[in-house]
Amino acid sequence: MKPGERRRLLLLATVGEIARVGTRGVRVESVAAEAGVSPALIYHHFGDRSGLLVAALEHVGDMAHGYTARPRRRGTGLDRVRAALLAEIQDNALVRTNSAAWGELRDAAIFDGTLRPTISRLTEEWSAAIADLVQEGCNDGSISAIAGGLTPQSAAHALTALVEGISGRWLNGSLSTREARARLRASIDATLASPFPGGPAH
Amino acid sequence: MKPGERRRLLLLATVGEIARVGTRGVRVESVAAEAGVSPALIYHHFGDRSGLLVAALEHVGDMAHGYTARPRRRGTGLDRVRAALLAEIQDNALVRTNSAAWGELRDAAIFDGTLRPTISRLTEEWSAAIADLVQEGCNDGSISAIAGGLTPQSAAHALTALVEGISGRWLNGSLSTREARARLRASIDATLASPFPGGPAH
Repeated sequence: MKPGERRRLLLLATVGEIARVGTRGVRVESVAAEAGVSPALIYHHFGDRSGLLVAALEHVGDMAHGYTARPRRRGTGLDRVRAALLAEIQDNALVRTNSAAWGELRDAAIFDGTLRPTISRLTEEWSAAIADLVQEGCNDGSISAIAGGLTPQSAAHALTALVEGISGRWLNGSLSTREARARLRASIDATLASPFPGGPAH
Repeated sequence: MKPGERRRLLLLATVGEIARVGTRGVRVESVAAEAGVSPALIYHHFGDRSGLLVAALEHVGDMAHGYTARPRRRGTGLDRVRAALLAEIQDNALVRTNSAAWGELRDAAIFDGTLRPTISRLTEEWSAAIADLVQEGCNDGSISAIAGGLTPQSAAHALTALVEGISGRWLNGSLSTREARARLRASIDATLASPFPGGPAH
């Protein structure tokens, strides 16, 4: 096995463990057992438990970037915003595990200062990528106005925060995948697409 | 100490413990030590660990109801929606601890089926209370239209999910209290108050 591939497998095992037992429950020994390697190999790759958690958080960001990249490739700016955000809520074990791990790491950062800079940076990057798509929609005319006169940046911050809120309700079963996606889509369209009744026509 | 008061103190200790170590890290023994009582007393009041967690979740809901009740008492419907939602983000140890515990319990419900019905019910009750205030704003004219033609119920679902998303970023320090409140307020106004540029005047 190539070193990069082994590192990836260790991170996958860590993300699964975070989603299953919560960030604070993760032990290097359990991840090693799960991945079928020695704890020493994990220390070799990641330094210590904190290093492993930060690397797992980066991995969660990469994975999310991966499964939202394809859907956001085509169509108008508005289509691409919708596709990128809706890809965060899919009936798919990878997306569920990744989203659950994201939530666990985000909340662990309340007490764990070593996770904080990475979670803030990934959140900003995600939001900036959505803001670019919103801007594109404004340029190509697919977004005629943003509700409340928000900037593309503010709208992207709100929409990504909304994804996190809806995602929490979806993951714990308060909302079905279908309901969660329908609500998210309605809010995207309310923020970006549909003028108020009596407002300007498209 | 009256029995109700003792129960309340045990729940406060439990909520603090959930916020501090995560739901899955909570042990009846640690809560007992924190509250200065015997584990037997906790079993007497709550049956078992699950009973304690469900009671703590109800308590979190009651507390949030308490600190959002006063601000939402006065003004127009729109004022009251704003006040009720903004009260969820305050520089105040009680609100921080309560919100962190809510997030931990919501995410623990992904794996803990005994928490799920209570978290879903509390989420629905919160959303219904906000929907009533939105409806009031539509009736008294302080809300002239809802973005995207959403119903008061859909708008309330979206706004409460948004509070949860912004709250996660606030609790982990990605957003200051001031930034979190400013963003939440801008989104409330974008959803409920400000027509699109060129839309109907108030």
